[in-house]
Amino acid sequence: MSAQAPHNTLLIPGPIEFDDAVLQSMSHYAESHVAPGFVKVFGETLTLVRKLFQSTSPTAQPFIISGSGTLGWDLVSANLIERGENALVLNTGYFGDSFGQCLETYGANVTHLKAPIGDRSPLEEVEAALKEKSYKLITLTHVDTSTGVLSDVKGVAQLVRRVSPDTLVVVDGVCSVGSEEIAFDEWDLDAVLTASQKAIGCPPGLSIVMTSGRAIQAAQSRKTPPGAYYASIANWLPIMQNYENNKPSYFATPPTQLVHALHTTLTQITADVPGRFAIHTEVSNKVKAAAAELGLKQLAARPECQAHGMTAMYLPEGLVPADVLPGLLKRGVIFAAGLHKEIATKYIRFGHMGVSVTDPKRGDIDNALAALKEALAEAKQAKGL
Amino acid sequence: MSAQAPHNTLLIPGPIEFDDAVLQSMSHYAESHVAPGFVKVFGETLTLVRKLFQSTSPTAQPFIISGSGTLGWDLVSANLIERGENALVLNTGYFGDSFGQCLETYGANVTHLKAPIGDRSPLEEVEAALKEKSYKLITLTHVDTSTGVLSDVKGVAQLVRRVSPDTLVVVDGVCSVGSEEIAFDEWDLDAVLTASQKAIGCPPGLSIVMTSGRAIQAAQSRKTPPGAYYASIANWLPIMQNYENNKPSYFATPPTQLVHALHTTLTQITADVPGRFAIHTEVSNKVKAAAAELGLKQLAARPECQAHGMTAMYLPEGLVPADVLPGLLKRGVIFAAGLHKEIATKYIRFGHMGVSVTDPKRGDIDNALAALKEALAEAKQAKGL
Repeated sequence: MSAQAPHNTLLIPGPIEFDDAVLQSMSHYAESHVAPGFVKVFGETLTLVRKLFQSTSPTAQPFIISGSGTLGWDLVSANLIERGENALVLNTGYFGDSFGQCLETYGANVTHLKAPIGDRSPLEEVEAALKEKSYKLITLTHVDTSTGVLSDVKGVAQLVRRVSPDTLVVVDGVCSVGSEEIAFDEWDLDAVLTASQKAIGCPPGLSIVMTSGRAIQAAQSRKTPPGAYYASIANWLPIMQNYENNKPSYFATPPTQLVHALHTTLTQITADVPGRFAIHTEVSNKVKAAAAELGLKQLAARPECQAHGMTAMYLPEGLVPADVLPGLLKRGVIFAAGLHKEIATKYIRFGHMGVSVTDPKRGDIDNALAALKEALAEAKQAKGL
Repeated sequence: MSAQAPHNTLLIPGPIEFDDAVLQSMSHYAESHVAPGFVKVFGETLTLVRKLFQSTSPTAQPFIISGSGTLGWDLVSANLIERGENALVLNTGYFGDSFGQCLETYGANVTHLKAPIGDRSPLEEVEAALKEKSYKLITLTHVDTSTGVLSDVKGVAQLVRRVSPDTLVVVDGVCSVGSEEIAFDEWDLDAVLTASQKAIGCPPGLSIVMTSGRAIQAAQSRKTPPGAYYASIANWLPIMQNYENNKPSYFATPPTQLVHALHTTLTQITADVPGRFAIHTEVSNKVKAAAAELGLKQLAARPECQAHGMTAMYLPEGLVPADVLPGLLKRGVIFAAGLHKEIATKYIRFGHMGVSVTDPKRGDIDNALAALKEALAEAKQAKGL
């Protein structure tokens, strides 16, 4: 049984349910951010981020900063690209639009390669786009939270290295890190940014960014100073290096309690990284099969474009989210409404990540599928469908 | 008795000890950031920030954003001033230097009016500086955490309105909000930025910024777009307004658990705001008298320049922090070493804020003063002083 107060099960694409140990470790008494105990925990947590990304490269560098996942966009945009340089955004939904706006804020010239809703651009189109201009960086949303579309990170990275080897490969992994495979070194990525509250299973409030030696080099060889102060790689780099070397260091006060929670969840996750991806795939397949059985079509039409930590499903014609979500809530289950502006009223989103997936004793997924079946039937009946 | 695990008492100038209820409220089960329960809590917390600042102005606007206190500098520098405009920094130590660097990152022309260590610039000097150029904004550090110097916020604000009425008055209140009086409307301030982990008594991870109608107007009438994305007032303003009007809204995921903790501590604090300042003054006077009795001179020499939430004390000639801090730790008390680069090895800092001050049953302050007396005597004896 959970040590947490009774509550409805949160199965949206983040924040997600917490393991008891994670939540308990966050209730840590007050600590100095430069005291030996905390320095050790923070340093270990940075090393655990490397493990999470299956990275052993000594030039790669993790960052853990107080902030939302969105802050990672600023970290990329203010440090890895300069005013007037070109960025190619592989746009698979809401979050591609926003990342593009962030890049433009810092002066980048942004080209969007927009895929149809529920799909991703084929590699041939990406190749053609890459050959049109010299791009300082390319961004892709690994899983678009608004649609559940999965990008081909490995394929795009290989392509970039072949046709435009100096272009930095930047992955928005907010909705993928912890549930989708990422082999940072092997795939030769330059930056993956994420947040604590999705498949990582920690409360929200941490921006986590993994960078390659090539990315750090780009930040350090800028012709102009970084575009931000709080989101400056130059300001944070020595801090992260010092903490990982067990030396206290100060630029801004780290969120000590959240770092404890992250340490706990990353210790759990990194005990078996491939196993974690496997179980997320297995449960995702089960969810998608059950949805199909209920006659629900996914936004991500092609199987290779479907995320493994969430499922975005069109509702039957005649139903809107407000017809179904209350029926789910009545049964103790929270799903999310649609987010993609053009079709928001036509679909719902089911997040299946973290402890709800890895701890079958909780019964979260089976309960949710049963509740979905009942709530749908009820809604159809109410509408005479 | 505390429900927290036994630990040494943290009496540094932030983070500080937590009230049990604050820490417990942070252990909240997972919640959607757009669910009615959380929307209500976040909205109420914004309203409590107004109360904390004794503000009733409908045009004033509080912001609560995931980040360290430092992020508040970016919020000011990227929104309230434009490239090429002038900023006057009233510099009383380490944090004035850094705020100046942040302003320069976003293109401001920064003039520092530097006070001698342990002092603040007299109003006549500030007036002379204000008359030299047209300044878009003036910043002052209410309490410099590195030295314990208290600025005359009310006096400076009155002066600015008299001699340069359009200049925005920006207060770095990271080490003052919750322990020093601030009457936001009455003093006619434009921005006060702070963090959650000092006198507010919440774990670190929240950047809290209070802005005036005049400041919002300046942000909205910029000739150029804001200099940052995550720290953009334009991006956050509708979100804060919606939450306070009990409407869910999304720009970036708020740190739900920390917001619960902030709600709890602000509910406690705002039950009696003047009483809170009074008890901080009373306890500060007691600490300063005890320090004087031990022959310890304060960095902030003049009484009107002495903060009420911390005391920075020179050690006797011949002692460095490493001679005294371990003796304090042995007695269960944590103070901080010096931070001001030029004199860091000559002094220590005692933070007396929040629950250690307001809950005398804890005995934190008396225990700390007794431990300081013993640790000093021990250190002197060891050095043959």
